[in-house]
Amino acid sequence: MRPDKPHRRRRAADIVQMPWQQLVNPLPPTPLISEDEVEAIHRAALQLLETVGVRCAFGEARALLAHAGASVDEADQRIRIGRDIVEEALKTVRAEIRLTPRNPERAVRLGGRHLTTAAVLGPPNCTDLVRGRRSGSLADLGELLKLTQAFNIVQMNGWPVEPLDVEVRFRHLAATRAMLTLTDKVPYVFCQSRQRIEDVLTMCAIARGETLEEFGDRPGVFSIINTNTPLTYDVPMTVGVMDMARHGQPVLLTPFIMAGASTPATIAGAMALNTAEVLFGVVLSQLVRPGAPVLYGCAAMNVDMKTGAPAYGLADMQRCTLIGGQMARRYRMPMRSSNFSSANIPDFASGYESANACFAAAAAGAHLLMHAAGWVEGGLCTSYEKFVLDCEIVQSLAQTLVPPRIDADTLALTEIAEVGPGGHFFGTPRTISTFETAFYRPLVSATQNYGAWLEAGGKSAAERATAIWQEALNHYAEPDIDPSTVEALDAFVARRTEQGGAPLD
Amino acid sequence: MRPDKPHRRRRAADIVQMPWQQLVNPLPPTPLISEDEVEAIHRAALQLLETVGVRCAFGEARALLAHAGASVDEADQRIRIGRDIVEEALKTVRAEIRLTPRNPERAVRLGGRHLTTAAVLGPPNCTDLVRGRRSGSLADLGELLKLTQAFNIVQMNGWPVEPLDVEVRFRHLAATRAMLTLTDKVPYVFCQSRQRIEDVLTMCAIARGETLEEFGDRPGVFSIINTNTPLTYDVPMTVGVMDMARHGQPVLLTPFIMAGASTPATIAGAMALNTAEVLFGVVLSQLVRPGAPVLYGCAAMNVDMKTGAPAYGLADMQRCTLIGGQMARRYRMPMRSSNFSSANIPDFASGYESANACFAAAAAGAHLLMHAAGWVEGGLCTSYEKFVLDCEIVQSLAQTLVPPRIDADTLALTEIAEVGPGGHFFGTPRTISTFETAFYRPLVSATQNYGAWLEAGGKSAAERATAIWQEALNHYAEPDIDPSTVEALDAFVARRTEQGGAPLD
Repeated sequence: MRPDKPHRRRRAADIVQMPWQQLVNPLPPTPLISEDEVEAIHRAALQLLETVGVRCAFGEARALLAHAGASVDEADQRIRIGRDIVEEALKTVRAEIRLTPRNPERAVRLGGRHLTTAAVLGPPNCTDLVRGRRSGSLADLGELLKLTQAFNIVQMNGWPVEPLDVEVRFRHLAATRAMLTLTDKVPYVFCQSRQRIEDVLTMCAIARGETLEEFGDRPGVFSIINTNTPLTYDVPMTVGVMDMARHGQPVLLTPFIMAGASTPATIAGAMALNTAEVLFGVVLSQLVRPGAPVLYGCAAMNVDMKTGAPAYGLADMQRCTLIGGQMARRYRMPMRSSNFSSANIPDFASGYESANACFAAAAAGAHLLMHAAGWVEGGLCTSYEKFVLDCEIVQSLAQTLVPPRIDADTLALTEIAEVGPGGHFFGTPRTISTFETAFYRPLVSATQNYGAWLEAGGKSAAERATAIWQEALNHYAEPDIDPSTVEALDAFVARRTEQGGAPLD
Repeated sequence: MRPDKPHRRRRAADIVQMPWQQLVNPLPPTPLISEDEVEAIHRAALQLLETVGVRCAFGEARALLAHAGASVDEADQRIRIGRDIVEEALKTVRAEIRLTPRNPERAVRLGGRHLTTAAVLGPPNCTDLVRGRRSGSLADLGELLKLTQAFNIVQMNGWPVEPLDVEVRFRHLAATRAMLTLTDKVPYVFCQSRQRIEDVLTMCAIARGETLEEFGDRPGVFSIINTNTPLTYDVPMTVGVMDMARHGQPVLLTPFIMAGASTPATIAGAMALNTAEVLFGVVLSQLVRPGAPVLYGCAAMNVDMKTGAPAYGLADMQRCTLIGGQMARRYRMPMRSSNFSSANIPDFASGYESANACFAAAAAGAHLLMHAAGWVEGGLCTSYEKFVLDCEIVQSLAQTLVPPRIDADTLALTEIAEVGPGGHFFGTPRTISTFETAFYRPLVSATQNYGAWLEAGGKSAAERATAIWQEALNHYAEPDIDPSTVEALDAFVARRTEQGGAPLD
């Protein structure tokens, strides 16, 4: 608490939004393919692991897998894993993971019927309609972390822009300090090197008032592992899987599947490779620490044959998402999906692509929606306006998924009888008393008629979103944090800075 | 065929789109509420019909229902229907309806696992980015009918703009002539008066080379009945239900539900009224002609408490859609949903609202998606650009719903083994040979990177859509029609015009 700055503690009262909550997805997951076909993909993945194998550049991993019975060819770094090893590893994966950040009220569950969201992750650029497009800076990161904190529907941190103005070897320290102080939501860890992972986990432990060892007993962060499809694990990603497992923290095993480029030009081949690479990570993580939390990641899509670019958010990606959900259920693993889109600006295509991606995630029974808010330009840029607009999409989805109460009170037969044929319900006690709460109140969507809308400036949804992120920043309230925790974080950052930070390996 | 105008027969070859097909929805329908709650809504609807009743201004309907055992209060035109009468009527409703227009290849099925689409219906205005917003004219109607014909994903006609430059009493004649010659898809009939219905059905019969009596043996058109919620059937709508049934043609019974305005401010109350009013129409239609085709329409939504306007396309509408699907399945009736949106222009909100509405329709197991293409301004305007953009949404949905082939060929294990870890699939025989067909090819969505997109003009999706409708109009090919059919239509229009047309009653 900083009693000398009372205005900063004010809630963003002017933005009407849903309260913080763990979202529940009541939809029965939608299968796109048959159970037999799920098994066919599973068997194909096993066969790929057994016969083609995975090339892994990290010797420690090869040694561990060889010890576990895998066939390792050191000449070309190829590891072939028998299905018995895979089946053994699958026995210890967890169906549900609870992540607890420094504020236990922001804990989230990945699994069951829950749907959890995280902000956009990784763009080097950011843009807004006031200041234009630019390379990301620490100041931009700070603002986007404030938006992450301000919108309840964003439940975990992403890495909403890369602070390119901070020297690489110190960047993880500065960014993590910002994340841990400006938000109290689950932090993200970039798996870029062993030292960086340890630095960031140590900071996250400090934020929870724990030692690094204590931190490992209770998951509190997460990281994405993007394998180099086809069938390649590079050093940073392999270290990531192993070190996160060692520290008891979850990774989202998400192969970079572009059917027609990194996999055969078929959905089946794409999902076979996706599954094989996920299973490789599962084996590795469970060998390091049985029960280590891992997610079945599915960001599979096709390459656009016209541009050679990934077709983020287009129809075939949604098909992969639905199948990915089926595969994750096959393994009783939590499933990660994404709010992807190819659009460069928050226009109609951006809206429909993102909405489809989010609805497909829900239909797939995904447990984690990555890049839930802010993603444009296929992930190369974060849009402040898109951040707000995506919050609208995800909030709407959350509202859609709430089964309404159906009972004598809500069926309201007496009220209907009293109003009678041809009457209206504007003035009934129920309508008046539930004026503000009965229905979804949009952030940006508007029902003004054309004339009123034109008179109000004729603004597009993206243009209207500008005022909302500005308001969110103006009313941003820093979350409570013990001053001694901040001191401890600063001391750690100072010491590690003095030691030279952590250059990329 | 008009051999003197060969260029007009050319297909719109430059627009890459899905072929004409009957869409199949493989998704298991998504229940939002329990079976018990479905029954609770059903019982509430029966109770409303029994105790509150429906006010119906059409004496002929009151007489028919009185004869069937309903309790009729002529003083306030109230009809109370016992549940036995409702249950009896439900026995004869059809679970599936086949609609056959003049070109039998454009026949569609409403029911089962099929999803059928129709263009936007009813807006008095239209707009495009080249010529701006304007009152609808016969020329605009002609263009929008050409777009309806050009895009395969639009399977039936709507009434894509009202030709306000044609005198009211002749308007149905001019519009129907345009619809029957510029398209060969299922035509729409506006139920505005007994005479108009007969005029239009007669023209549709002529187009099929049939008498009006023959036409009644095989459904070939459709109409929407919007009841005046709560519990009121006016004369045109009641005539519509009765006359369409008499002629064996289907109506979409779609109450105008705005929770908080025309119904209590609860989803439960809204769906109870929706169901009661649909069931009233079911009873009436089945009394006129047992087996008459009818659809369970659900366009239920809330009123935006801030503007007093319907919240088209927002979250609570999607919830109603999911429950509407459950009610329709309860009655084994085909279900009608809509691609609704509140947005005034095709911006981000327009995109996400429409995508959500379409995905919700699919999840609800809807059989007919009305207003599938073109709707803006809450239905008061048709946007040419939105027409194209909506085609993209519906095409994408259709592609998403196609279960991919999963077999030894598509799993492609040999291809993967040959490429090996770290390789790429750009040059494999499969990738090369399926270059154009492997994945969804978007109409408007683009995967260009930011630089290339900027260089290409930095156009929004809506701006890019302009070129596509222009191209569709330029390449429009008039569907085949026998010259004698056109003559017969013209003769009919001439005769009815000479007779003074059909003024609104």
